Amino acid sequence: MPDTSLMDKIVSLCKRRGFIFQSSEIYGGLGSVWDYGPLGAELKRNVKNRWWKSVVQERMDMVGLDCAILMHPQVWKASGHVDGFADPLVDCKECKKRFRQDNLTDTKDPDIRQCPSCGAKIDLKTSPARMFNLMMKTSLGAVEDASAVTYLRPETAQGIFVNFLNILDTTRKKLPFGVAQIGKSFRNEITPGNYTFRTREFEQMEIEYFVKPEEDDKWYEFWINERFDWYIRYGINKENLRIRPHAKDELAHYARACSDIEYKFPFGWSELEGIANRGDFDLKQHSQFSGKDLSYFDAGENKRYMPHIIEPSGGVDRAILAFLVDAYHEELVKDETRVVLRFSKELAPIKVAILPLLKNRPELVGMAKDIAEGLKKDINLVYDDTAAIGKLYRRQDEIGTLYCVTVDVQSLEDKKVTVRDRDTMLQDRIDVTQLKEYLINKIS
Amino acid sequence: MPDTSLMDKIVSLCKRRGFIFQSSEIYGGLGSVWDYGPLGAELKRNVKNRWWKSVVQERMDMVGLDCAILMHPQVWKASGHVDGFADPLVDCKECKKRFRQDNLTDTKDPDIRQCPSCGAKIDLKTSPARMFNLMMKTSLGAVEDASAVTYLRPETAQGIFVNFLNILDTTRKKLPFGVAQIGKSFRNEITPGNYTFRTREFEQMEIEYFVKPEEDDKWYEFWINERFDWYIRYGINKENLRIRPHAKDELAHYARACSDIEYKFPFGWSELEGIANRGDFDLKQHSQFSGKDLSYFDAGENKRYMPHIIEPSGGVDRAILAFLVDAYHEELVKDETRVVLRFSKELAPIKVAILPLLKNRPELVGMAKDIAEGLKKDINLVYDDTAAIGKLYRRQDEIGTLYCVTVDVQSLEDKKVTVRDRDTMLQDRIDVTQLKEYLINKIS
Repeated sequence: MPDTSLMDKIVSLCKRRGFIFQSSEIYGGLGSVWDYGPLGAELKRNVKNRWWKSVVQERMDMVGLDCAILMHPQVWKASGHVDGFADPLVDCKECKKRFRQDNLTDTKDPDIRQCPSCGAKIDLKTSPARMFNLMMKTSLGAVEDASAVTYLRPETAQGIFVNFLNILDTTRKKLPFGVAQIGKSFRNEITPGNYTFRTREFEQMEIEYFVKPEEDDKWYEFWINERFDWYIRYGINKENLRIRPHAKDELAHYARACSDIEYKFPFGWSELEGIANRGDFDLKQHSQFSGKDLSYFDAGENKRYMPHIIEPSGGVDRAILAFLVDAYHEELVKDETRVVLRFSKELAPIKVAILPLLKNRPELVGMAKDIAEGLKKDINLVYDDTAAIGKLYRRQDEIGTLYCVTVDVQSLEDKKVTVRDRDTMLQDRIDVTQLKEYLINKIS
Repeated sequence: MPDTSLMDKIVSLCKRRGFIFQSSEIYGGLGSVWDYGPLGAELKRNVKNRWWKSVVQERMDMVGLDCAILMHPQVWKASGHVDGFADPLVDCKECKKRFRQDNLTDTKDPDIRQCPSCGAKIDLKTSPARMFNLMMKTSLGAVEDASAVTYLRPETAQGIFVNFLNILDTTRKKLPFGVAQIGKSFRNEITPGNYTFRTREFEQMEIEYFVKPEEDDKWYEFWINERFDWYIRYGINKENLRIRPHAKDELAHYARACSDIEYKFPFGWSELEGIANRGDFDLKQHSQFSGKDLSYFDAGENKRYMPHIIEPSGGVDRAILAFLVDAYHEELVKDETRVVLRFSKELAPIKVAILPLLKNRPELVGMAKDIAEGLKKDINLVYDDTAAIGKLYRRQDEIGTLYCVTVDVQSLEDKKVTVRDRDTMLQDRIDVTQLKEYLINKIS
């Protein structure tokens, strides 16, 4: 059963503390588009940077890429998106609303459905479904005619495929090797929802891994495991993750096999990332449509062939939502509920908070600010003196800050400060001259 | 005089080595849209991360934000973009091409211009200019009617203004404070060009710094100097930078003052970043259009007022181009021309290259690969064994790699490697057990 109360708590915390705001909220909001606030922006940076470090920097067989959102319209012909990336929509003649056909209510008559909004009967023989393409259109240049129409990319993957030759030429990579990319994509979803889970503007982190055709099963398995482990390494509880292989009739037209890594969201098990074996579909299509030979010359085997492609394709926003949900904990401390986001040390948006015990004592405030100044180049931190210490601790727990450093009256004399651990709530007394090294050891 | 030969060399190097590719190149390219290749993607990451560290992490008076590209269309009414963000365009009736009016060729008759393409005369009385809005349109949701039309943001700034209250509420910041954001923006430029300098899709790094009205001059000067120094800190030669204050008649409608930081590009002095004093224009406009009071309550002065805004607005792509141009050096070494990109250590896309002296000696290759494996978690590096050592050095110089580590036959015995400095070309012999510490000290 969906845990709506947990979801409500997450949404409320994210808004109240500045993780996620609705886009253009003062204008009533823009449907299913979200902005990341100060803490959300840091969390998102951490998720993306950790992904990049794992799949680009630490792998000798991978390189990065950063393609434009706008691409030549022929790309989307070749990819199949112009003709195939569409949902069947049905109009209700009564209430004038439009629905995806599979969202209409069934009746006993297979040709008759019911409108999920007004309840009117819809006869599919007289109101048949029309295909609605999910790509967002725009127009380039000063002349608004059909020749200038192009699309906002619905996936970052195609930028990697069309640059395959450029990447081969400039990096001298041999199979197997991969290309990683992070960036925005856009889909005109008919039924977006579940907060930031399904949105019309979203960010992807995609890998296209090029392999010898006979090795594609092996690398498909490799990447499923690799990506599953990545979520666990950065804090997701293994119990809340599962791998779901697609059934044959569920596969996209380009896929030979596909498995989803699913997370147990409060609204149910849902896809975090899909790992697909795309075979040679993409390089073949772009070879045919562009007239350029995108095959690979294997010097070892002295032959030319189309590599197969394994694609681990994750959603940045979905990963963030999963990390938020999984980090959320409530616990009783001295009969009060403590809310704590147990982010991993790598993902926590703020690593350290510097807090003076008394804000009306200028010496304490001065010492705390000096400490913050001395640490800020090396540690992402905040300074806060706008409440009593108990409340300041709760505020930091609630956003997942790893350590709170408190400057008290004693600190003025012994030049020591109290460092409190978010998870254990245990406190260490540390000499100010040792503080930077102590904290850097803890957080790195 | 524009140095076209330098520009040609940069463009060629960027394509050949994988900094910048034309978007959708195998389909003939998409006009004035560019992709960052493996090295360009790393360089771009470094530029953006250094900006973020300088203006967010290291400043206690700043926070970050990450807004969506899509916003409510009313935002662009309030900002003035729907009505004012347009160029006057004139059609040539002969060749059917369209031009910005100021790009037509003058004649002795003030009403008559000449087409810059076919030379035909254009009578502005019978072919008057029409205003063409530079925002790119798209449409949200399943119904393609006027109510669903919105725009791709032409600047990231507005996301900060409309979130002003959310940021105040969630961060408890007091004036002066600022909000920083990096992200893509889109403008349907009529005359894009100069490589990646003026493009239809581009990335901005913008700060909106909120101040007391009486302090706006002070902070305007502060940010001009701060941003000027930033480019120098990361490698731009001071001789190639200048500050150009705008004349009164040059100011945008929202600006009380504006200065450009200009770089001496091969095609002439051009804007890298603009620092504007926007006064209270934006918060007033959005208050009026949204009906929400965006004023600030100053608890110290016990009064409510509209903050003024200082906006340092830089282009990521322009910064990258300037860093590339400024880093480019040719020098004679033993009668051969050495091309070297003298990137700062922070911006260099690759910090270290690991090179075996002989690729047909498995022990050397094995040792070099082991060294790479041992360093890759801490250092962004490449391994290359596809040429002789002289050529490998030149390849790394040309992309700005800071240090080359060479494994030679002697290394097998003494467990030492040669570390070559990109700029001095001097070589150190370092014990393998000391190598990581040696390199990390050099590059951090």
